[in-house]
Amino acid sequence: MPKFSVTFHPSDRKILVDEEENLLQAAMEAGIHVNASCGGSATCGKCKVKLLKGVVDSPKHPKLSQWEYDQGYRLACLTSIRSDVEVEIPIESQVDKSVLALKGDRGVHKYLLAPQDIYQLVPGWEVDPAVFKRYVQLDPPTLKDNVSDLTRLINGLTHQHGIEGVSADFRVIMKLSHILRPSDWKVTATLVLTKKGYKLINVEPGDNTHRNYSIVLDIGTTTIFGQLLDLNGCVVYACPGGVCDGTTLFALAEASDYNAQISYGEDVITRIVYSQRPGGLKKLQEVVVSTINKIIQELLEMSKIERSLISHLVIAGNTTMTQLLLGIDPKYIREEPYVPTANFIPPVRAIHLGINIDEHVHIYIFPMVASYVGGDIVAGILGSGVFQRETLTLYMDIGTNGEMVLGNKDWLASVSCSAGPAFEGAGIKFGMRATRGAIEEVSINHRTYEPMILTIGRAKPIGICGSGLIDAVAELLETGMIDQNGKFRRDLPTDRVRKGPDGYEYVLAQKGETLFSEDIVLTEIDIENLIRTKAAMYAGCKVLYDSVGLSLKDVEQVIIAGGFGRHLDLEKAIFIGLLPEIDSEKFIFVGNGSLLGARLLSFSKNLLKETERIALMMTNLELSNHPTFMNEFIAAMFLPHTDSSAFPRVMERLYRVRRDYRSERMVEGQL
Amino acid sequence: MPKFSVTFHPSDRKILVDEEENLLQAAMEAGIHVNASCGGSATCGKCKVKLLKGVVDSPKHPKLSQWEYDQGYRLACLTSIRSDVEVEIPIESQVDKSVLALKGDRGVHKYLLAPQDIYQLVPGWEVDPAVFKRYVQLDPPTLKDNVSDLTRLINGLTHQHGIEGVSADFRVIMKLSHILRPSDWKVTATLVLTKKGYKLINVEPGDNTHRNYSIVLDIGTTTIFGQLLDLNGCVVYACPGGVCDGTTLFALAEASDYNAQISYGEDVITRIVYSQRPGGLKKLQEVVVSTINKIIQELLEMSKIERSLISHLVIAGNTTMTQLLLGIDPKYIREEPYVPTANFIPPVRAIHLGINIDEHVHIYIFPMVASYVGGDIVAGILGSGVFQRETLTLYMDIGTNGEMVLGNKDWLASVSCSAGPAFEGAGIKFGMRATRGAIEEVSINHRTYEPMILTIGRAKPIGICGSGLIDAVAELLETGMIDQNGKFRRDLPTDRVRKGPDGYEYVLAQKGETLFSEDIVLTEIDIENLIRTKAAMYAGCKVLYDSVGLSLKDVEQVIIAGGFGRHLDLEKAIFIGLLPEIDSEKFIFVGNGSLLGARLLSFSKNLLKETERIALMMTNLELSNHPTFMNEFIAAMFLPHTDSSAFPRVMERLYRVRRDYRSERMVEGQL
Repeated sequence: MPKFSVTFHPSDRKILVDEEENLLQAAMEAGIHVNASCGGSATCGKCKVKLLKGVVDSPKHPKLSQWEYDQGYRLACLTSIRSDVEVEIPIESQVDKSVLALKGDRGVHKYLLAPQDIYQLVPGWEVDPAVFKRYVQLDPPTLKDNVSDLTRLINGLTHQHGIEGVSADFRVIMKLSHILRPSDWKVTATLVLTKKGYKLINVEPGDNTHRNYSIVLDIGTTTIFGQLLDLNGCVVYACPGGVCDGTTLFALAEASDYNAQISYGEDVITRIVYSQRPGGLKKLQEVVVSTINKIIQELLEMSKIERSLISHLVIAGNTTMTQLLLGIDPKYIREEPYVPTANFIPPVRAIHLGINIDEHVHIYIFPMVASYVGGDIVAGILGSGVFQRETLTLYMDIGTNGEMVLGNKDWLASVSCSAGPAFEGAGIKFGMRATRGAIEEVSINHRTYEPMILTIGRAKPIGICGSGLIDAVAELLETGMIDQNGKFRRDLPTDRVRKGPDGYEYVLAQKGETLFSEDIVLTEIDIENLIRTKAAMYAGCKVLYDSVGLSLKDVEQVIIAGGFGRHLDLEKAIFIGLLPEIDSEKFIFVGNGSLLGARLLSFSKNLLKETERIALMMTNLELSNHPTFMNEFIAAMFLPHTDSSAFPRVMERLYRVRRDYRSERMVEGQL
Repeated sequence: MPKFSVTFHPSDRKILVDEEENLLQAAMEAGIHVNASCGGSATCGKCKVKLLKGVVDSPKHPKLSQWEYDQGYRLACLTSIRSDVEVEIPIESQVDKSVLALKGDRGVHKYLLAPQDIYQLVPGWEVDPAVFKRYVQLDPPTLKDNVSDLTRLINGLTHQHGIEGVSADFRVIMKLSHILRPSDWKVTATLVLTKKGYKLINVEPGDNTHRNYSIVLDIGTTTIFGQLLDLNGCVVYACPGGVCDGTTLFALAEASDYNAQISYGEDVITRIVYSQRPGGLKKLQEVVVSTINKIIQELLEMSKIERSLISHLVIAGNTTMTQLLLGIDPKYIREEPYVPTANFIPPVRAIHLGINIDEHVHIYIFPMVASYVGGDIVAGILGSGVFQRETLTLYMDIGTNGEMVLGNKDWLASVSCSAGPAFEGAGIKFGMRATRGAIEEVSINHRTYEPMILTIGRAKPIGICGSGLIDAVAELLETGMIDQNGKFRRDLPTDRVRKGPDGYEYVLAQKGETLFSEDIVLTEIDIENLIRTKAAMYAGCKVLYDSVGLSLKDVEQVIIAGGFGRHLDLEKAIFIGLLPEIDSEKFIFVGNGSLLGARLLSFSKNLLKETERIALMMTNLELSNHPTFMNEFIAAMFLPHTDSSAFPRVMERLYRVRRDYRSERMVEGQL
């Protein structure tokens, strides 16, 4: 709930912000340019603004003289807003782009759903986990009632909880007699619903029903994300009626790390190649398991949950990642006609893969559709609710690969393109994923060509992540520093553009401001890689709706999933032609869609069947030999696109800003 | 089909025999006594008979002089019958007992069913094994049809064989892609029907459907029996319509051995005690697995079947043996209230137990009813068809323990008694199981007290097995050498009865005639053990039908199962009170009932459900605290029983032979 207004002078632009909002952040959101090339880490001292009215928290800083401080100058990056305020932007940054902005008051934030909103995507499900615990108090055996220990327990589950058709895991049988007696026949049973009924997987002494947790993992080619969930959260604390209001379903802990397989190849193809070496498959399995174990360890430490209380693992990954994790040779994924080994994987005992978790824990592995449309996409379709929606929806997962799904509750079609891992930092000179120190927002002054950058955590810049990359390219295009082919103008009056070892480049942050005392630059090669990626995505979408006889106009909703962090700027993504130019109200950003689906599945056993249905229903179109894909791809290798009629508003804006800038410079005698 | 008649003079007794029948065997069956204390091994030279008419094969022997041979004397144990013959028994053995015999022409053989008859016990089932192979020819994948390898295979099974609802074992998925391609997409799938549908457990290149075998095992406390079965036998060669005529369902190989756990205790109680030592449970599991592996090895060598062609193991064992095999602590089986850990065991992968067989092979373990009524009994009820019979049937399994089941298709009640392993050789000074060299038939001349013994394999005697023991005690009773308490008369005019280190004993074979140059004797203690065993069995049966308000008269059929070998003599078993005195037509001997059930289950998946139903339907009565069992047991500690009205024919016979013998001896001046 934005509370305070911030008015920027001299443009008189006003936005609403939360209490304690950072002033530099507010400027970025308002489309006000403030020079800031240290990412908000209070290093460069360039983000000086003058407070005209209102209350802020803002400390002194060596880059501010006492006179400046007394005059009301503050470093925006150090300033927290405490009331309605008015600030003046120093003259060198006065020309802002607010007039050009298409976006609304809160910028992209209105498209990025808060966690509780996400559950509105999939209404109607109940918190009723597939792996659950039930407490039973059994009568001790007597000579008149000396049924077996297992029968006694199963009868207890039936009579006390109405659970029928239970079969027992052999390991439970092994230890059962020695748990029932010391616990005075009062035990907690852990059950899992499988396709084939309930399976008893664990028995603990006493009542442990309130301690039941799961870990969900998204195994990406580049990054692995994990969350630790309290499977009782909702049932106990918030939703006595059983229908979830979603508010308590947040993860207790989140952790992520690079997939350690990265050392053996950046994308799935190089991984598959590595797996064909002697011992390669085993090695790749070992290292991904080592990353998983590291993440589990972190989740346990962060949440202070004991390892033995984890009852379930849910894993979503693309087909290659899934096969490598399981140790299934992925060879034929890479060879035409691109055949995966299996779509449905039976539950696997986690310790069998080397995962450091109790022996009773099984892994639910999201089913796969094709070699390049994996469990991560099925999870995304589940988690974003496409599977139960009437409206025609386009689901785009933008990661190391790009996968797109078109459809609704009745049908689903998918394509995938090996876009290259640009958005996850690979193939980009200073690329990195969206962690602390990554440049996530970029604005460039159209007169001075000076950047304003914001890093995640307001730390000294280390590199640039996916959203920062899109911002930067959009800004370079908008300011006319690059042409529509992505090439730098050679005649720009700024040191920021220069010829480096890899060709022309733009200096985003200078070595004095960065963490590693090295300039952070964006090269023409980086830009070309980005264009290649966005072209593949765009062309894939085009083929997708063409193939089913529909057009972009028919699409009623676009769901964007992917590892962009919180700050992908919708308008900028459209501006460079990564996303199609359609009404911005149609877009929803869900963040990591796979993790979302994995979390949902953890909480609701009813979604097991839906997940299977999604995987069976989805039809995959192979792009590799598709008659029109390559043409569409080449047509999209342009900013925003060679077909300018597909991006009328972008083209109009590009024309307008170029004209405005030109006339402005003419006024100032620069042209 | 008996072909030739044999007439014994001077009694003029005639029986029909097969061609090449051994003459000593024929005499035993006819109830003609011939002295023979080397078991038929041509050592003692006592079985001289004179050929009067007909053709025989019979070699010369040092114990026969040339004169004797010329006169027509032959050693009966060396003589094969080649035509209708007439023989004269020498004067010292002339008094035979044929006038006393109750049994018919072919003796006990008419009650012991031939293997093919056994299938008449369970009519109506079809050969349709739970583990079966299907050959599929798949279309290779193309870009237009690039479903996963597993989906392709499962679709093939559905379209080519109508098999639906198949799930795959993870190990199949692991190797699938590398089997399909080299075999040109023509493979054989091995499937198993479980309670939860079909599971794909193996894939082999090419068409291997004609090579599908199972091994069934009866894990006894003393002995382990195994059979190797051709699961296609009937389908391919004999029963195109599917309904089995039974003729091709014999095992390809049979093997047995002592359960190596014997070194750690003779019965289940001592085994359980041993299992409570540190490392004891593990040790017992290891050694039983070592015996199983030995038997499997033997079966494979005998049948010349490759190990990899075995698709299924079916195991029936008592509850303690089952828990020990699985490594489940049997502690509470022994402690009141005698609770087993589980009745139903999920399918277990054989290699997980250390069994040397391919990794895809699962074990079906027969469900158990109670701590002392195990899977062996459930298998017996299945194999003997009690579960589908209208008539009231008493099923008795006589082994290390005795278990009795009363009931029909609608209800079943069971009891068990720790009879002691007398019938399997333990607790008997020269006891052994029914293998080569075991005395299996005994007859004693009532005048000379000389024995006529037959050993298995006509080898030199090593010891005495269950059937021999019953024969011997019955003969000792009939000849008046022991009284009804089982004590030897002290005044007998023979060296065969003497005082040995363990008290009075009867010399069955003298050291010159035995394999180990030691007298083989039967002691009073042996006899007491036998009486204890038979008393427990009898009392158990009594309690069983008393408990359900029925009496022996209501029992329409008695099925005898157990490791007696081929030659348990029904009349002698009744004579000593082991079996109740009812019409001999009501008895059926089925041999190893557990193995019978295990074999049936191997061949028919429809019997999986029936087996579960049997285990659930059976009500076990605990004898340990039963109000009347101890009284019944004490009443039965007498030969045949303290209640002589329950054995009117035995008592009449005992009275008559005693009178006849006495008058005979008076005539001869011996009394």
